[in-house]
Amino acid sequence: MSELRQDPTTKIWVIVAPERAQRPQQEVKKRRVEELPPYDPACPFCPGNEDKTPDEVFRIPVATESPAWDVRVVPNRYAALIPACGVARREHGRFFRRMEGFGVHEVIIESPSHNTPMALMPYEQVEKVLLSYQERYNYLKRNRMLRFITIFKNHGWASGTSLAHPHSQLVATPIIATHYHQKFDIAHDYYSDEASCLYCDLIASEMEQGQRVIAETAQFMVFQPYASRVPFETWIIPKDHYASFGLYPSENLGDLARALKDVLLCLYHELDNPAFNYTLDTSTTADEDDPYYHWHLRIVPRLTTIAGFEIGSGIYINSSLPEETSRRMKECCTSLSGEGLISLCPVTSA
Amino acid sequence: MSELRQDPTTKIWVIVAPERAQRPQQEVKKRRVEELPPYDPACPFCPGNEDKTPDEVFRIPVATESPAWDVRVVPNRYAALIPACGVARREHGRFFRRMEGFGVHEVIIESPSHNTPMALMPYEQVEKVLLSYQERYNYLKRNRMLRFITIFKNHGWASGTSLAHPHSQLVATPIIATHYHQKFDIAHDYYSDEASCLYCDLIASEMEQGQRVIAETAQFMVFQPYASRVPFETWIIPKDHYASFGLYPSENLGDLARALKDVLLCLYHELDNPAFNYTLDTSTTADEDDPYYHWHLRIVPRLTTIAGFEIGSGIYINSSLPEETSRRMKECCTSLSGEGLISLCPVTSA
Repeated sequence: MSELRQDPTTKIWVIVAPERAQRPQQEVKKRRVEELPPYDPACPFCPGNEDKTPDEVFRIPVATESPAWDVRVVPNRYAALIPACGVARREHGRFFRRMEGFGVHEVIIESPSHNTPMALMPYEQVEKVLLSYQERYNYLKRNRMLRFITIFKNHGWASGTSLAHPHSQLVATPIIATHYHQKFDIAHDYYSDEASCLYCDLIASEMEQGQRVIAETAQFMVFQPYASRVPFETWIIPKDHYASFGLYPSENLGDLARALKDVLLCLYHELDNPAFNYTLDTSTTADEDDPYYHWHLRIVPRLTTIAGFEIGSGIYINSSLPEETSRRMKECCTSLSGEGLISLCPVTSA
Repeated sequence: MSELRQDPTTKIWVIVAPERAQRPQQEVKKRRVEELPPYDPACPFCPGNEDKTPDEVFRIPVATESPAWDVRVVPNRYAALIPACGVARREHGRFFRRMEGFGVHEVIIESPSHNTPMALMPYEQVEKVLLSYQERYNYLKRNRMLRFITIFKNHGWASGTSLAHPHSQLVATPIIATHYHQKFDIAHDYYSDEASCLYCDLIASEMEQGQRVIAETAQFMVFQPYASRVPFETWIIPKDHYASFGLYPSENLGDLARALKDVLLCLYHELDNPAFNYTLDTSTTADEDDPYYHWHLRIVPRLTTIAGFEIGSGIYINSSLPEETSRRMKECCTSLSGEGLISLCPVTSA
């Protein structure tokens, strides 16, 4: 049974989950997907092994009534948080604030194929993954004790993943994490001053500057932020204002799927299948129609390791200029779209 | 030439330093120090290669007038920040706040020996390293444009180090990093409410609970925090109130050296020479006599990798209970002091 503990010196929450140490570690150190089989009989996420996961909570079948599936969502067997406990805060003395490990931790199995990373999936499959995210987000938000829902993906050994089969995760918590608190506060202050959304204005400024914008689709802008923390950090952000991913029109998720898959394919080619994380940064479940926040998807390649300076200070050292890495991404984009491999069209620099 | 850029959505600063990409990567993947030679003719930090580093700014000689040294401090050849530039903030449009990469980045070469990690150094050598930290801290703080000085160490490949020869680093910046801002704000709020130092009160509470305290020396308490972010996170904190490491009585650094070396030796034995970082969390250079902050040394073993959930939310998942890992550290302590290898005496649990 896990618990949530708060550090009194930083207000940062930590999930202490000794059960997580029992997780099996698969052969994810193999970097090349070519070295992985399309089906692994020992993999709990491969078709035929559905009984090796907890009972599924959602699926997209291959066809109506078909027992075969395109996407499955299951509770995480080694869950960091579980729904069957309380949310009361307890104090062990003055400095030792804790809650039982209440929450939801799910796994989105992105495909029946063991060795097809998202970069190589058809657009329709990526769209089904995104629809599953939204479905679970909107289902879980009805529980008002779940105040925040983080959706994220770990790809490749250096990203912290323990299983090779393509999957994403969802963690719903009874607390709003420090990082998001800070982002909400900053966006709220900006709105108080300017009566406009920080992110909407940032999109307009990035478009105007042009140097870091890689591509634009009907609904999304793809860019590398001015203060990218790591080389090739890339954001995909809806051009229209929506605070919450939950309320985003699901008919636009096909457009997002194309942008996401194409960006990941460019990274795959440019950086030789790099490890990466992405996170879907969205509003709290209670503030889905905020005028000041604006959801976005943040892709963070794991090419370098943070060291003592970053751990201590929270200042990042990025050894690449985003203007330079976005130029490389645009060139890669041009070359792949020339080969008919992607649909994303790079913008021409201002 | 590097620059400091601020992310408008988080206020986090990033040092963009393309020159850092040119750093040589030594054979640090070898985990066992036994596999490293005591002297490596290609290592810029080994004796005889003094001309391969920039001119030294400080040294502790083996003896007065001796050309041989015990500790050397040199500017980092691949510095993230340099002193020869301005500190004015510039705005490229509304969202693109930047400064030239002003600051100081130094390397503390901890020993002439290529293969003696701090865990295996004599106490006197560790004390000389700590005296060098303090010497450089107090020298650099006189430049009032340097508002914060971070001292840290990266040990082992997974810690982000690029050179095997034992060394620490110092980075002095014209800005106060977000992480420290938050810690100062929280400690300041606590002081406003309680008229006492958060850390002094925390020390008393940890002592009273006893479960996470590993050892106590004349001047220091060694413990693993209640909300440890990673397994075996360990703090060494002075029992008396000092906001700044710069003003800490240098005659007590011998006591700190013994505590630090003994803790690192326990980690070395218990976790088989793990990769780790430590950071010296201290006040700003302008607030060295604050009643509310309290410097401490934070050791962060790198046994696990942060993943998408931590990157997105800032909530950490720790797969170990600090009560359990500090019990293991105490047992290790008892056994090593029984062999006469360390001087640290574990406390008996309350």
